[in-house]
Amino acid sequence: MSRTAVRLIALLLLSHSVLSQSLPISRTNLMGFSREGSDAERTLESRFDAALKADNLRNWMKQLSLRPHHIGSAYNKENADFIASLFRSWGYETKLEQFDVLFPTPRSRLVEMTTPEKFTLKLNEPEVAGDPSSGQQSEHLPSYNAYSIDGDVTGPLVYVNYGIPADYDELAKQGIDVKGKIVITRYGGSWRGIKPKVAAEHGAIGCIIYSDPRNDGFFQGDVYPKGAWRNENGVQRGSVMDMPLHPGDPLTKGFGSTKGAKRLEIKDAQTLTKIPVLPISYSDALPLLRNLDGAVVPESWRGSLPLTYHFGGKTPTVRIKLEFDWKTVPIYNVIAKMNGSERPDQWIIRGNHRDAWVNGAADPISGLVALMEEARGLSELAKAGWKPKRTIIYAAWDGEEEGLLGSTEWAEQHAAELRQKAAVYINTDSSGRGFLGMGGSHTLEKFINDVARDIPDPQTKMTVWERTRAEQIVNGSPAARKEATDRHDLRIYALGSGSDYTPFLQHLGIASLNLGFGGENGGGSYHSIYDSFDHYTRYGDPGFAYGIALAKVGGHATLRLAAAETLPFEFTNFAETVSGYVSEVVLLVNAMREETRSTNQMLSSGMWKAVQDPAETFNVPEQKANVPFVNFAPLQNAVAKLNESAKNFEQASQGKQASPAFRKTLDETLYRTERLLTRPEGLPRRDWFRHQIYAPGFYTGYGVKTLPAVREAIEQRDWNETSEQIAVVSKIIEDFAAEIDRAAKMF
Amino acid sequence: MSRTAVRLIALLLLSHSVLSQSLPISRTNLMGFSREGSDAERTLESRFDAALKADNLRNWMKQLSLRPHHIGSAYNKENADFIASLFRSWGYETKLEQFDVLFPTPRSRLVEMTTPEKFTLKLNEPEVAGDPSSGQQSEHLPSYNAYSIDGDVTGPLVYVNYGIPADYDELAKQGIDVKGKIVITRYGGSWRGIKPKVAAEHGAIGCIIYSDPRNDGFFQGDVYPKGAWRNENGVQRGSVMDMPLHPGDPLTKGFGSTKGAKRLEIKDAQTLTKIPVLPISYSDALPLLRNLDGAVVPESWRGSLPLTYHFGGKTPTVRIKLEFDWKTVPIYNVIAKMNGSERPDQWIIRGNHRDAWVNGAADPISGLVALMEEARGLSELAKAGWKPKRTIIYAAWDGEEEGLLGSTEWAEQHAAELRQKAAVYINTDSSGRGFLGMGGSHTLEKFINDVARDIPDPQTKMTVWERTRAEQIVNGSPAARKEATDRHDLRIYALGSGSDYTPFLQHLGIASLNLGFGGENGGGSYHSIYDSFDHYTRYGDPGFAYGIALAKVGGHATLRLAAAETLPFEFTNFAETVSGYVSEVVLLVNAMREETRSTNQMLSSGMWKAVQDPAETFNVPEQKANVPFVNFAPLQNAVAKLNESAKNFEQASQGKQASPAFRKTLDETLYRTERLLTRPEGLPRRDWFRHQIYAPGFYTGYGVKTLPAVREAIEQRDWNETSEQIAVVSKIIEDFAAEIDRAAKMF
Repeated sequence: MSRTAVRLIALLLLSHSVLSQSLPISRTNLMGFSREGSDAERTLESRFDAALKADNLRNWMKQLSLRPHHIGSAYNKENADFIASLFRSWGYETKLEQFDVLFPTPRSRLVEMTTPEKFTLKLNEPEVAGDPSSGQQSEHLPSYNAYSIDGDVTGPLVYVNYGIPADYDELAKQGIDVKGKIVITRYGGSWRGIKPKVAAEHGAIGCIIYSDPRNDGFFQGDVYPKGAWRNENGVQRGSVMDMPLHPGDPLTKGFGSTKGAKRLEIKDAQTLTKIPVLPISYSDALPLLRNLDGAVVPESWRGSLPLTYHFGGKTPTVRIKLEFDWKTVPIYNVIAKMNGSERPDQWIIRGNHRDAWVNGAADPISGLVALMEEARGLSELAKAGWKPKRTIIYAAWDGEEEGLLGSTEWAEQHAAELRQKAAVYINTDSSGRGFLGMGGSHTLEKFINDVARDIPDPQTKMTVWERTRAEQIVNGSPAARKEATDRHDLRIYALGSGSDYTPFLQHLGIASLNLGFGGENGGGSYHSIYDSFDHYTRYGDPGFAYGIALAKVGGHATLRLAAAETLPFEFTNFAETVSGYVSEVVLLVNAMREETRSTNQMLSSGMWKAVQDPAETFNVPEQKANVPFVNFAPLQNAVAKLNESAKNFEQASQGKQASPAFRKTLDETLYRTERLLTRPEGLPRRDWFRHQIYAPGFYTGYGVKTLPAVREAIEQRDWNETSEQIAVVSKIIEDFAAEIDRAAKMF
Repeated sequence: MSRTAVRLIALLLLSHSVLSQSLPISRTNLMGFSREGSDAERTLESRFDAALKADNLRNWMKQLSLRPHHIGSAYNKENADFIASLFRSWGYETKLEQFDVLFPTPRSRLVEMTTPEKFTLKLNEPEVAGDPSSGQQSEHLPSYNAYSIDGDVTGPLVYVNYGIPADYDELAKQGIDVKGKIVITRYGGSWRGIKPKVAAEHGAIGCIIYSDPRNDGFFQGDVYPKGAWRNENGVQRGSVMDMPLHPGDPLTKGFGSTKGAKRLEIKDAQTLTKIPVLPISYSDALPLLRNLDGAVVPESWRGSLPLTYHFGGKTPTVRIKLEFDWKTVPIYNVIAKMNGSERPDQWIIRGNHRDAWVNGAADPISGLVALMEEARGLSELAKAGWKPKRTIIYAAWDGEEEGLLGSTEWAEQHAAELRQKAAVYINTDSSGRGFLGMGGSHTLEKFINDVARDIPDPQTKMTVWERTRAEQIVNGSPAARKEATDRHDLRIYALGSGSDYTPFLQHLGIASLNLGFGGENGGGSYHSIYDSFDHYTRYGDPGFAYGIALAKVGGHATLRLAAAETLPFEFTNFAETVSGYVSEVVLLVNAMREETRSTNQMLSSGMWKAVQDPAETFNVPEQKANVPFVNFAPLQNAVAKLNESAKNFEQASQGKQASPAFRKTLDETLYRTERLLTRPEGLPRRDWFRHQIYAPGFYTGYGVKTLPAVREAIEQRDWNETSEQIAVVSKIIEDFAAEIDRAAKMF
């Protein structure tokens, strides 16, 4: 029978029987499954869904966020034992894997304005009514930035907006230098660790980071406890290690920080800050900002505080005195395994961190409890006799907040075995209410779209896929709207950093996904003492309906990956996406060329100077060297080949299964394609990051840079390096395409 | 000798003698002048420039802004007499022309929050240190909106952002109705009179307008007296008459409000508000805004006050009680004439208003003192024997602030004579420091560009034309940058309303210009007691160097218009500009069609509803009727003809002067072309506004609508009216083109 005939009959069946029963069963095969396999898998997923209970999520969140559970705390270890005991009770082979990591905590913190008047910042988040855990003050980790160095510095204060390189260009135009000064910068615009790094590069001696109400306070909505947003005393803790160099323990780059491992001396660590840095609330920032002298900052620099934002530079002067206890503490990853029956050496890894800065109900418990319920759901299937073909590993990582410590040390420790066996890593983290966010390797894009197409949205009659698509169509830019309307799959976002997928994807080359819901839960409690059970159950996902939806998305993905006859990798979406990245870097160079030409012309003609207000200071920037034409042909040829190979693979594999004898090898070939996107030399100046398609930006931190070696060379206007890296990346893409060709021959 | 030979010799002369002396004399003819005439005119302009003195501007500003001088005040009349005596002393035929106008002033003003707590607004602008005129509290006109009706209303408060129609669409989506409620709206986004008009159309019973610091307060810069911007107590007074219907005395539409004129009864006046309205400071607004309940407003609605902006709708409740003294007061226009020697019945009119809301140093005295110095400069030339060919009239209008009263009543009173004789009207108003703004009739675009090309900028070595162009290139959008780089002339802006050109241009069809400097002086004193001599000399144009530059621009323009052999009208720029307007309305309909189609699809598919947060109220808007295809061919054919006629005229007139016998007739033909752009029936629903190319928007107030009859019919989705008005405007443009053809034959 032809495919068309099958589909016609299926449609008739749908319209006459299935649709009348309103069963959302699609009659097309699942990726990697045969007809029979698809039916069996769908039945299994229905049974899985039926087992999930929202009350479990609520109860576990209450338990796990009851007391502060940062690394090294007693409650952190209690939580590890509690989680492990649950996994064991569900039948998983479970252990705690310990690493010992450098973890500085404050011995003393002092910030004071020394002139024009004396003012000492309170550096304290008080208890609020109706939130008992905000009253656990003696157990709270003080507000601070981990991996700031010790220091005692005094100097004039300069406001540097988000503290990214472009902001220092603006300061230079204004004739303002931060050398020997202390910068105050607001959260947002980049990952926080970028701020002290760039400040130090420009000669600053200290750095204060505050939360402007424009970004996550009263400008956005009512503040806690009246609403979800950050109140005047809320402080965002967080790591400021130089994570774009490498995450994990600063003393054990590239290997596990096990008990006996040889560590760097602290003075030799590469990822500590160069200057002392501390986060503060906006009530503490107000007196400092009010006293800034100098010119008024540009409009895009202004926040929502009731004052005129100035650059500063002379007044006020500020002292920062920080002293840390540079101790080593144990961390405990909970690792729970369900062995595969047919291909036990192919691993599907599913992780979420479990540690928090304080009570951390949203971050990370909201994601963790969905993962736990998912694992419990799978265990119910296993108890009823189901066995995964492949091995499933659930991980509750510790020490994520400090710099992906638990996942990185584990990935480094088990690197050889993971390179061999890890097929896919699926990550979750904080999750809320609203729309499904999907990021990851584009070789898994079709797969995760298909998963999302089957999950009902808790608030509408749509699937979570349809609602996310609707959101992009209704609220997206014209380009996003067009793409969401016309493209078969929703485009998943490329991964930068900021959660535990980084060591798997970017260090080891394991295809990864990152999943979560959001958009309708209020923000503002992030990394403060107000990220509590009370906050989450009022403003997050009060009924845990989206927690259940996340368990379904993660659970179906894990089930399918573990059960598929062939791993559901696909390459046409990847090829199209990488083609898009190549177009972007070509356009980037053209835009830089035109912008440089035009700016140089305005500078050389004197126009730029002439339009400045002579009543204000203005330094005319120097002209930049003209942007040359760059040979992108190698990249363009490589992606042309990639597109061709992806189409060949699609045609070769369409509707077919590899013969049983080939399946294991085919699987291995497929999942190891992602390894081919890495190279042992890594990226220029940061060899830990090996992936050539996705990396966190050197100057954005979490924000992704795709084709990072090429793109960052362009951004730094290093045209020799640009050409070198074009050659490197082209070769990577060609080899990847050749491997797809080999895989295509296995059908 | 051929033109080329003449130019070659001229170039040689330039390079060998003139340039070496650094004289900025161009060898091309001035528009409307012969070779000899151009040389004489340039010499005259140099003598004019040499006579100008900045100290005069300073002294006159000090004098004229010494005390409050709103209409009806004693000091207003003193100023009129002072100005008239100066003009007389300079040899002008000078008189005061009186009109008697309706001028309500507050008898009592009360705004109080009645629930959830009692709070009475202070409605007062206090004295500030270092600004003596801010202490003249007994003479200050209280803060209010003129032509608000009396009223005593109490109701719940709703925040409506700028209070324009689009804001009410947003409120409807949120399920919020203003019927029977009081609206609070912020200044900005439209002319203030639109706010109570649209509020009343939606059923509101009262309107409060406040100055949000986002728009002209601390968000923009330091507040007065530390800086230029509006402090917490500053209130923006202003007229709220329905000026888009007609300006001038509400009781004498279309004719002068002279002593005996028959007036409407107040109850029959069309341009009073329908509901009571009062402006307040943000310190008065704060307690009201803090108490608003309901959902959080969209991001673009949020101001800079330290609170979360909510829609309100139930809480708080507010009472507004306003009672006005509906008296009639005399206003006095100062009219000063210098008779033309050759063509005395061709009038060049030059005006600036002289009345203020309070002391009004910037608004209007900064522009007025430049006009006065210009008039004095001309009188010096006249004393030395020069005589203008055409008659020059200087006007210092009264009652502009209340609704262009002085200029409108004068234009209506002398309408017949003005239609006959007025060649050009040149307006100025508040002026500051920075860049030259040029607006007006595009038949004068080339002319005013040429004038600006000869005026040195006070702060740079450029001309004011070059610096303005540089500003558009350096800071403009990509489109603006391209146009400023490539186009021979800077595009002047089309006139909406907001100053005294309106009766001349839009009621009588007199080609007009509006000129002023700005961009580097700080704002925020507008219509408050802080618009003072001290404010202006600190933050406006402290040395009056731009005041002198404005006197030069206005003076050269007036001199050239008065002395030219043929009036310097030109039509290619006009034709190109009108072609652009036609393209705009075609694109507008296409964009509306696509937007309507796409929105309807999102509504009918349920997508729109599905992406809304179910935790918040949201009313799905109704689908709109599809946008039909509209026949724009008549307009497109008309502008094709217009472009052709404009080019013909350019070729016919290039380098030639009409024979002396024809010159007077040619002049009249040229300046009456602007009359052909009007029609006696006026615009739909507002017959006072007769110009078919430029009008203030019915729902924008000051903001211009070009091709207003067509554009507003489109915006209102009235497709029958759109087609009717396309026919009307096409005919207007065709007749205009035919008249240019006739003029071309006179060379």
